[in-house]
Amino acid sequence: MDSSTPQLKKANTLDINNISQRLRDAQYAVRGELVIIADQMQRDIDEGKRKDFDKIVFCNIGNPQAVGQKPLTFIRQVLSLLEYPDLLNNPNIDSLYPKDVIERAKEFLKKTKFGVGAYSNSQGFYFVVQDIAAFIEKRDGYKSDPKNIFLSNGASEGIQMFLLSLIRNNTDGVLLPIPQYPLYSALLSLLGGTKIDYYLDESQGWGLSMDELNNAVNTARSKGINPRAIVVINPGNPTGQCLEVENMIEIIKFCHRENIILIADEVYQENVYVEGKKFTSFRKVLFDMGEEYNDVQLFSCHSISKGFLGECGQRGGYFELVNIKEEVRDQIYKLASTRLCPNTLGQLVVSMMVRPPKEGEPSYELYQKERSNVLNELKELSILLTEELNNVPGIHCVRPQGAMYIFPSVTLPEKFNEEAKKLGKHPDFLWAKYMLKEAGVCVVPGSGFGQKPGTNHFRTTFLADKDSLRDAVRRMKTVQEKIMKEFA
Amino acid sequence: MDSSTPQLKKANTLDINNISQRLRDAQYAVRGELVIIADQMQRDIDEGKRKDFDKIVFCNIGNPQAVGQKPLTFIRQVLSLLEYPDLLNNPNIDSLYPKDVIERAKEFLKKTKFGVGAYSNSQGFYFVVQDIAAFIEKRDGYKSDPKNIFLSNGASEGIQMFLLSLIRNNTDGVLLPIPQYPLYSALLSLLGGTKIDYYLDESQGWGLSMDELNNAVNTARSKGINPRAIVVINPGNPTGQCLEVENMIEIIKFCHRENIILIADEVYQENVYVEGKKFTSFRKVLFDMGEEYNDVQLFSCHSISKGFLGECGQRGGYFELVNIKEEVRDQIYKLASTRLCPNTLGQLVVSMMVRPPKEGEPSYELYQKERSNVLNELKELSILLTEELNNVPGIHCVRPQGAMYIFPSVTLPEKFNEEAKKLGKHPDFLWAKYMLKEAGVCVVPGSGFGQKPGTNHFRTTFLADKDSLRDAVRRMKTVQEKIMKEFA
Repeated sequence: MDSSTPQLKKANTLDINNISQRLRDAQYAVRGELVIIADQMQRDIDEGKRKDFDKIVFCNIGNPQAVGQKPLTFIRQVLSLLEYPDLLNNPNIDSLYPKDVIERAKEFLKKTKFGVGAYSNSQGFYFVVQDIAAFIEKRDGYKSDPKNIFLSNGASEGIQMFLLSLIRNNTDGVLLPIPQYPLYSALLSLLGGTKIDYYLDESQGWGLSMDELNNAVNTARSKGINPRAIVVINPGNPTGQCLEVENMIEIIKFCHRENIILIADEVYQENVYVEGKKFTSFRKVLFDMGEEYNDVQLFSCHSISKGFLGECGQRGGYFELVNIKEEVRDQIYKLASTRLCPNTLGQLVVSMMVRPPKEGEPSYELYQKERSNVLNELKELSILLTEELNNVPGIHCVRPQGAMYIFPSVTLPEKFNEEAKKLGKHPDFLWAKYMLKEAGVCVVPGSGFGQKPGTNHFRTTFLADKDSLRDAVRRMKTVQEKIMKEFA
Repeated sequence: MDSSTPQLKKANTLDINNISQRLRDAQYAVRGELVIIADQMQRDIDEGKRKDFDKIVFCNIGNPQAVGQKPLTFIRQVLSLLEYPDLLNNPNIDSLYPKDVIERAKEFLKKTKFGVGAYSNSQGFYFVVQDIAAFIEKRDGYKSDPKNIFLSNGASEGIQMFLLSLIRNNTDGVLLPIPQYPLYSALLSLLGGTKIDYYLDESQGWGLSMDELNNAVNTARSKGINPRAIVVINPGNPTGQCLEVENMIEIIKFCHRENIILIADEVYQENVYVEGKKFTSFRKVLFDMGEEYNDVQLFSCHSISKGFLGECGQRGGYFELVNIKEEVRDQIYKLASTRLCPNTLGQLVVSMMVRPPKEGEPSYELYQKERSNVLNELKELSILLTEELNNVPGIHCVRPQGAMYIFPSVTLPEKFNEEAKKLGKHPDFLWAKYMLKEAGVCVVPGSGFGQKPGTNHFRTTFLADKDSLRDAVRRMKTVQEKIMKEFA
């Protein structure tokens, strides 16, 4: 009855050698080996087993509410009523919630029809995609069609769906900035596509050069790789760089000329800290360039996890497809339907993010105040941490223009590099491990984001409170001095 | 500077012919073409443009709260406090919420550390996986290791992650029941694996025969397909069948003998309606069989969307890995980390599902009452709808033992089948379209789940209220009689 050989059968159940090679190849340093060690150290501190630090300072991930940022009151008040609408029948409801909170909750309950416990349609609640379309139109000055907007569990899920749609095999390539947020390289590994590196120029404040893009495309083509899309993260992660409109025009011309799809990761669009700089969407620049460029296909995503909301745990986001045919959108809809719907609460947070309380409404002032507190604080922290880090010997960084990260370079003694090599690790991984174990600070090694060969970097968030950050850098300095001495 | 030919460049941007073939191949009828039409019909009714029906009766998807099921009070009360913890400082809080609700909310806030707005770790909150392990141990009588449990956005996401880990290429096959919940075939298409059909026996109440399994495996191997895993849905979707323990033992022996991984979809474990039947997990049966079988690898998943909670929109679920090596689990952890974390609210609903109010606590009685109301109602509806449907000429079904669906066969006139063929559609797709357009009832064609060639079926939920269901069947009967006459 059994026609298989014993060997074939043995190889069937899962071990490290017979799982998906694509999964084995995928790397995601933001939550990699070091973070697992850091989590264990924190658990040991919590349980009193470890006393060398009060706490681990987690600078590995943009997780604002884990380092003290408060959620926006209006948003959470509305959500609490959506979870428990019976409260609306309480005779004292007016003393518990502002009037506009109650109204918004009632509006959502009416528009969702069945509240938050039923699946929405696969694209997301129809009224939420309409809210988003109105926001985009106001931001860019060009109409947006709700049909082209999809809600997602955070921005990551949307990026995954889009890449899945376009990658056919390993000759399909996607241009990724180096350094880059490693979700992109991880997804390309998982989907079996090929990444095409283009290097950002550290000496130009992590600027994007067109020569570099053209070279990357030509090199890829000469190897038989078809560059189908380019990822641009603006403001940059991990670099914090904000693109100038002139540069964006060049990128769009490049996409037009080379017939390359533009994937614009714009989740940090609210996070710009430099005077005189402001965020402009790729969509606006593209439409400003006129009809000649309407063959440029654009994917753009946004999230509730960043900006001034920092609602990471609620998992909400959206993406918009521009200049993409209905037949393709229908296929993405089908893909979205296999996961039924994004979580409903996250969808409604997106709605509130794009349609906050209006001037004159009871929650308006508090909302605005909470918003500017968060953004001002982030700006101050970005300046403070840049200064502090530049005082550490061997560390050099430029002040980030936006986002939530600094990506400093680290100069390390030659003997340290040799030690790392002996251990089979990248020097900046070993360095980050020192910083975790001896300074209690969890940063991500630059090698997790990509960097010029022979250089070392790390990514740190600037999200903790000032005292924690100052303290963290003080401890890092001590460890760095120790390293420089020990490996001199 | 540009080495590519114009043709190569032209083929780059997205159209239906150059997107991922795997995506094009994937089918997911539960939310397919008919549901898009149904959504539009409902919008037209809402906007007063359509007056032939009061409402569309959506029987296409197990979405209980969209058809009148109320959420459990305890769960929603706790969630509302988690969204807006400031309420806990209200002097009247004790008059707003029962004591155990307040305590549970405080406990969650303490254990999550940063509330619901921060990312949890990638596996899910550690205390929630501990809660789940305790629930599993109590259910099965065998210890469960929290390390092997992962939270997910609904069960679907967990199934996707596991299949992604095991599918290497199109010679890796997975045994799927026919009829099956089409998530499995859709995911296999998307991941590039091969589905291996095994037919459930309609004449035996959709029973699972070992001969059929053995034949399916041997046929696959003779074609060069390596059967790596088998999916068993228990209670069955769409069949409602509940497996006998004897049958489960045979399946485990089959997995042991053939070295095949067992994927147990156990999301309907609370939904068993037949006297004398009760759910037994594959995990319990496997451990009962003793050490000899500890080479059988098992994946089992559960969800907050089904059972008596019906919290579909909150997207919560978990899966447990049994007899799977740490090195493989670490790879799945890495995969989980690329999506950062499942939404936190959904995770906490899972915690409450597996750790409900205890006897003696203020919310206990109401929770139990709400629970039995839902389950009794579902049982009554399953009996009612079976009877009603069996009164329609040409429709035949068996009473489902569990889950939320009936999968009746439909006998259609030969001319109707020819008409469908002319339109390039499956006869039961055309039939379901008639039922939607002329009876206002949205069911899923059997061809979307798979069935014996030459037969026609449909899947319907039994979730609406009694009057709506009776009314729906009445209209279906009229349309069916019309079809029989028109195509006689």
